[in-house]
Amino acid sequence: MSINNTTISNKINTGNFFEDFSIGQKITHPLPRTITDGDVSFYIALTGSRFALHSSDELARDFGYKKKPLDDLLMFHLTFGKSVQDISLNAIANLGYAQISFANPVFVGDTVSLETEVIGLKENSNGKSGVVYVHSIGYNQHKEEILNLKRWVMVHKKDKTVNSGINQVPSFAKTTEILEDIKIPNINVVNTDATGGKYFWEDYVEGERLNHLEGITVDNSDHTLATKLYQNNAKVHFDDFMMKATPVGQRLMYGGHVISIARSISFNGLQNAQWIYAINSGTHANPTFAGDTIYAYTEVIEKIEHKRDDIALLRLRTVGLKNIKPSDVESTFDENGKYLKNVVLDLDYTVVIPKKNNN
Amino acid sequence: MSINNTTISNKINTGNFFEDFSIGQKITHPLPRTITDGDVSFYIALTGSRFALHSSDELARDFGYKKKPLDDLLMFHLTFGKSVQDISLNAIANLGYAQISFANPVFVGDTVSLETEVIGLKENSNGKSGVVYVHSIGYNQHKEEILNLKRWVMVHKKDKTVNSGINQVPSFAKTTEILEDIKIPNINVVNTDATGGKYFWEDYVEGERLNHLEGITVDNSDHTLATKLYQNNAKVHFDDFMMKATPVGQRLMYGGHVISIARSISFNGLQNAQWIYAINSGTHANPTFAGDTIYAYTEVIEKIEHKRDDIALLRLRTVGLKNIKPSDVESTFDENGKYLKNVVLDLDYTVVIPKKNNN
Amino acid sequence: MSINNTTISNKINTGNFFEDFSIGQKITHPLPRTITDGDVSFYIALTGSRFALHSSDELARDFGYKKKPLDDLLMFHLTFGKSVQDISLNAIANLGYAQISFANPVFVGDTVSLETEVIGLKENSNGKSGVVYVHSIGYNQHKEEILNLKRWVMVHKKDKTVNSGINQVPSFAKTTEILEDIKIPNINVVNTDATGGKYFWEDYVEGERLNHLEGITVDNSDHTLATKLYQNNAKVHFDDFMMKATPVGQRLMYGGHVISIARSISFNGLQNAQWIYAINSGTHANPTFAGDTIYAYTEVIEKIEHKRDDIALLRLRTVGLKNIKPSDVESTFDENGKYLKNVVLDLDYTVVIPKKNNN
Repeated sequence: MSINNTTISNKINTGNFFEDFSIGQKITHPLPRTITDGDVSFYIALTGSRFALHSSDELARDFGYKKKPLDDLLMFHLTFGKSVQDISLNAIANLGYAQISFANPVFVGDTVSLETEVIGLKENSNGKSGVVYVHSIGYNQHKEEILNLKRWVMVHKKDKTVNSGINQVPSFAKTTEILEDIKIPNINVVNTDATGGKYFWEDYVEGERLNHLEGITVDNSDHTLATKLYQNNAKVHFDDFMMKATPVGQRLMYGGHVISIARSISFNGLQNAQWIYAINSGTHANPTFAGDTIYAYTEVIEKIEHKRDDIALLRLRTVGLKNIKPSDVESTFDENGKYLKNVVLDLDYTVVIPKKNNN
Repeated sequence: MSINNTTISNKINTGNFFEDFSIGQKITHPLPRTITDGDVSFYIALTGSRFALHSSDELARDFGYKKKPLDDLLMFHLTFGKSVQDISLNAIANLGYAQISFANPVFVGDTVSLETEVIGLKENSNGKSGVVYVHSIGYNQHKEEILNLKRWVMVHKKDKTVNSGINQVPSFAKTTEILEDIKIPNINVVNTDATGGKYFWEDYVEGERLNHLEGITVDNSDHTLATKLYQNNAKVHFDDFMMKATPVGQRLMYGGHVISIARSISFNGLQNAQWIYAINSGTHANPTFAGDTIYAYTEVIEKIEHKRDDIALLRLRTVGLKNIKPSDVESTFDENGKYLKNVVLDLDYTVVIPKKNNN
Repeated sequence: MSINNTTISNKINTGNFFEDFSIGQKITHPLPRTITDGDVSFYIALTGSRFALHSSDELARDFGYKKKPLDDLLMFHLTFGKSVQDISLNAIANLGYAQISFANPVFVGDTVSLETEVIGLKENSNGKSGVVYVHSIGYNQHKEEILNLKRWVMVHKKDKTVNSGINQVPSFAKTTEILEDIKIPNINVVNTDATGGKYFWEDYVEGERLNHLEGITVDNSDHTLATKLYQNNAKVHFDDFMMKATPVGQRLMYGGHVISIARSISFNGLQNAQWIYAINSGTHANPTFAGDTIYAYTEVIEKIEHKRDDIALLRLRTVGLKNIKPSDVESTFDENGKYLKNVVLDLDYTVVIPKKNNN
């Protein structure tokens, strides 16, 4: 089995660098994924999620679904994970997200896939890197849109001596547009004994802050199981040997897992807000590591009516914290406007919640 | 996105305190749960359970089931978990269990839910807390009983200055009643090559002690994955930051996980005792923490005949140990009658096992 | 509940010792296992596997399957795990594997089981142990062969004073025979956008070495969840208390998990080699422990044509490394021909990969 004349292969996908992207370029990400009950159990086990719609087929049928739809964030992770190897394998930083929406519900048995178009490129003045702006759309097996998102990442350049000076930055809406047609069945009576929450859209007020009660400590196996399940292969999450040689010194938790933990914690106080309609923007303010305990609080930013009279929307800001309870945090920023070191997530998103009139 | 006039919400469910309970009060616990194959895989991965009936649809069909029924303890955890937020979120201690029974088998696809009645209240003389006694019944989607249990927990009082003096303590049967109708199909021949055990009811003797061979070390990710899967949100299991500020200093393992690990270990010697008929009583003698290795031994307390001639019952006492092998433990108690510090579980339960006559 | 006259039971299965085996002996291993979607999700979460055929029902149907077949290694672990309690519970070492093949695809819903014949016995001259050679065949519920393997393990003797001098060593083929009939549907066009790889059989050359990019750190919960899922009850993987009293000082990772991690890492460069046809031989060169980061490189040993013109085979050697990147390892052996301490796996196996002509 000894081999002479070994040649090192060039078949390894080392990911795309800044120069590999061009405006208008379209990428079909590999690995369509059929979603199963196993994925759903994992999501509950990894996050402790308790939103009733995603927990019970019986309750989902009461809401008018054929069976329980997938948690929007689980669908996001499983679909989004596919883009890492093409977009962000050589990312220095995930800079931002905008206009994320979830057009159609996804169910166990569906197969999801993702396509991306490059919509902006901006070379950094240091010549070492650039920012890539992309627009990705996820589909189910019927080619129906299930996810729509924009993001921008800072990516290494291959050749630091050549400077193209490209600077085409797209503009993003501050919030995801709310459509006339929301793909949620007509909600009649909500069984609050089943959902665990008695509050409806009318009960919330702008400026209200919910200091969620629970904290969840995340260990290395948890967050790496999650990220591997999503087939997200960003090395910073898995490769402790590599990370030990960096200033960070250890594996970084996938930011998406922090979003999911914060959302799970937000159940207590938002039990009936079972649908994420959109993510308007999100910032991973500080990294999260194994052993950190995640807490969260939520502010009601805006109450939004819809032409439907059974449901309406709440624009929320959920702040994820590490190792400090929400009641001990007044503002997320220090006097210089920088995030406090215990703030790990600042998420601006919009949820759908039933109105009281039927309930 | 800055918000003026923030008001702290009162919509957070902080759980019930002693004063919130009244005799005869009925609680429908939220979060009906549809059980999936993912939950079953998790249970095997988390406990290493090897009872054949829950492992193979083919073998289950040989026993007369349509497909493999759920492990009784997995069903217990998934159903029982729902009661934590209403009953024991402010519990100081889970004091005891009695008369737990599993009336009907549960299958993947079933949706389980839980209802509770308060059957007793006893204020502690210190005025700070009280004991709440409850009777909970679990149902499947056809409203058939699948779980029946009584438990009592010590709960904090809200107002320590007011003393109601309430003292209504219900009585409990020492063992769960064994019904004439046991909902297990008629057992013909048992394929001992498939179950892995050659011993039947007649082979066991009262007083026989089985020192089970295997030990299973539990890590933080294991027990927190289990408890999150069960949507049990008791903070002591998840919130390491909070626990570090207590004398315990770390997360406590969910006692139910210890029961499951001990049951899994008891496979070796009790391979054909695949049905838990009842749990008569149980004590979590000492806490279990990440890194502890669980061992177990089982004593045959009583051999119980039934009018059916294909099956009979064994009342067992399984003792869970940490970091000591069963062969090194003679008694679970010290000279003062207190549990030794390595004893973590003392479980009195009744199993069904086929008789030899057919086999 | 106190018991007098306790007798220690002899019903505990302490596993087989060298004297318990005889040439020609046949063993039906207990615990047939119905494979579920939960098992498949676990496999992805535990290994990060990204081979598209096992990820998407849609893509599997394009390949001519009714739905996605199980990853060959997941099937291997679930089937093989059953043999531990009969063959290797008292093993000192798993010495080798040979002629492993995967005759028919396995799908979610299938029930797998395993039978073994003892084909060789060799007592060690020290009188303390011996080597047991076995031939195991795995079946699905239709009694179709799904796995065929030979292995040999060193096992303790019960009585070290009696020496039988038995020395019957079977011979093994250096590689698994490649049959005329390969049970893979006729492959038409491969959607390389979906599989993530653009290389086909013709693109690889003998002597080519692929230094795979990713590294995966394994924690205790990961590898123990995997091994418990497979119902492999070898104590060295689970019982930290026992292992702490040995020179090793901690739990050993199941070697099969290392194989799976290495295979998962080999995706990058071998994306279209989605079928393991055979494992010719394998060596666990050094133990792997929690915290180790696994890397891998693969050498193309041999290009093998088949009478089918849509597919052909590659004989590969995948070397698993711990805590060192493939680019830093030239040879796996030191000057004395011993494995370097960072080498954990040396796997000789044969994969099927589509040919270019259709693509």
